[in-house]
Amino acid sequence: MAGIGDDCAVLQIPPGHEALVTTDFSLEGIHFRRQWHPPQSIGHRCLARGLSDIAAMGGVPLAAFLSLALPRKLPQAWLNGFLRGFLDLAAQHRITLAGGDTAESPSGVLADIVLIGSVPRGRAILRSGAKPGDRIYVTGKLGGAAAALDQLFSGRKLRPASNPRHFYPIPRIDVGQILRAKKLASSMIDLSDGLSTDLAHICEESGVGAEIQSAALPAATMGKRPVPLRFVLHGGEDYELLFTARPRSRIPARIAGVPIREIGRVVRGTRAHITDAEGKRTKLWPQGWEHFRK
Amino acid sequence: MAGIGDDCAVLQIPPGHEALVTTDFSLEGIHFRRQWHPPQSIGHRCLARGLSDIAAMGGVPLAAFLSLALPRKLPQAWLNGFLRGFLDLAAQHRITLAGGDTAESPSGVLADIVLIGSVPRGRAILRSGAKPGDRIYVTGKLGGAAAALDQLFSGRKLRPASNPRHFYPIPRIDVGQILRAKKLASSMIDLSDGLSTDLAHICEESGVGAEIQSAALPAATMGKRPVPLRFVLHGGEDYELLFTARPRSRIPARIAGVPIREIGRVVRGTRAHITDAEGKRTKLWPQGWEHFRK
Repeated sequence: MAGIGDDCAVLQIPPGHEALVTTDFSLEGIHFRRQWHPPQSIGHRCLARGLSDIAAMGGVPLAAFLSLALPRKLPQAWLNGFLRGFLDLAAQHRITLAGGDTAESPSGVLADIVLIGSVPRGRAILRSGAKPGDRIYVTGKLGGAAAALDQLFSGRKLRPASNPRHFYPIPRIDVGQILRAKKLASSMIDLSDGLSTDLAHICEESGVGAEIQSAALPAATMGKRPVPLRFVLHGGEDYELLFTARPRSRIPARIAGVPIREIGRVVRGTRAHITDAEGKRTKLWPQGWEHFRK
Repeated sequence: MAGIGDDCAVLQIPPGHEALVTTDFSLEGIHFRRQWHPPQSIGHRCLARGLSDIAAMGGVPLAAFLSLALPRKLPQAWLNGFLRGFLDLAAQHRITLAGGDTAESPSGVLADIVLIGSVPRGRAILRSGAKPGDRIYVTGKLGGAAAALDQLFSGRKLRPASNPRHFYPIPRIDVGQILRAKKLASSMIDLSDGLSTDLAHICEESGVGAEIQSAALPAATMGKRPVPLRFVLHGGEDYELLFTARPRSRIPARIAGVPIREIGRVVRGTRAHITDAEGKRTKLWPQGWEHFRK
């Protein structure tokens, strides 16, 4: 790659591929708090948000750009920790930090992350490909990140090592690429805002409805108990993948070591519904994830 | 382009081209003030910063991404004005707003702009290509943006229509592309931080020195008088281009309607010097542009 330290970075997109671009803010007080999150976790989470968007397209990440505005009195040790968290995750995915911008912040730490990826031409997995009859799947377990956040809000200190899903979420890059390469997924999105909200995006973009079975949802655990259903349905920042597949597609029970669970079906209509363990069916309203607010 | 409203935008990079990526913060209180700048100007300036980086590589802009964090009480009319300024300039350059992110701001308006462009493979004009003997050129006139800023600092109200170089700077996209297509420039950078600082980048990246003739510098005018030399040498945000060319290259007096001025020569060494009208030669220290601070 040429152009590091130049006016622009110059990136090679592999022949026959298209470029993927995503950008995400991570703002102190909105997306993280320095009292709650060690700097390594904040750096990791910044980059994970962008990598997860690349994963949701079935893409290959190529390069990251970090725009970082810092308050004047920020300790150097904090910045070092932030960059360590960011660069460790970048190294795991073999991407470089190819550029960005720095500025003095008027208030708190402000980060904006850009991820550039690539995908074979015409093969990106969009939100708009679901059809009635498709099955609906999720990777991993849901609600763990929001349950940890709830604990932080109630004043408890959490050890990052005991709550990796909140402090060090794993973007599902491998799963996304395998689903794309094997042509298994008809639509896909990452679970950044919570299942109810992200499923509504699939329904809207695909012009379909959805029927979810509550009993099928893979709840994360905290200690030994599953987290409350509200976190599974509406909690954000799990960075798992939500995808649909044609009824004849054989979806493995695990992909790249990550468990895959069928949670419902795509139907005609425009809305999502959920059926509980007693067979009671209700509308599943998108309940927008409001980050660090109650 | 596919993928608008999806997890990533999907962009086609033309065959045989490389991707250019640049990202720039525009932060209230650091890069602009709502008391001084109408919202259209702020939106325009946000995008102009990124377009100017594409221009400095000789690139073709393809798409813009805008991450925007807004305070809760921001009037809708302000946002409408901002977007009008941004989108009018985007339309002039035939690029789309392909995505971005929105958030609530902890303090003031925070914008981060990403520009994606393209350039034929291996043909981007870098900062590192200058050689001793090359001539040094600038486009347009210098110091106008900083002189206007100085007036704003001293409490004067300025009419945007009378000070377009500050409120509505014109990125030199056409000039950059012509210089690249005709293989005229050996190195290039845009004047965002001021001539003394940006020339130092060329010197550093190319491993050369520079000799500038003060009398040759094209000073902007304010009213009918040329702006003071300190603004010409150190004032930022003019968004003109600074480039070098081999001594045998014939550089036209105007390119795409923009006057081009030879201001000095590349020499062996590592530093820039300036010779004044009386023949006195001094070091030209980079005097970092400190935006809205004194």
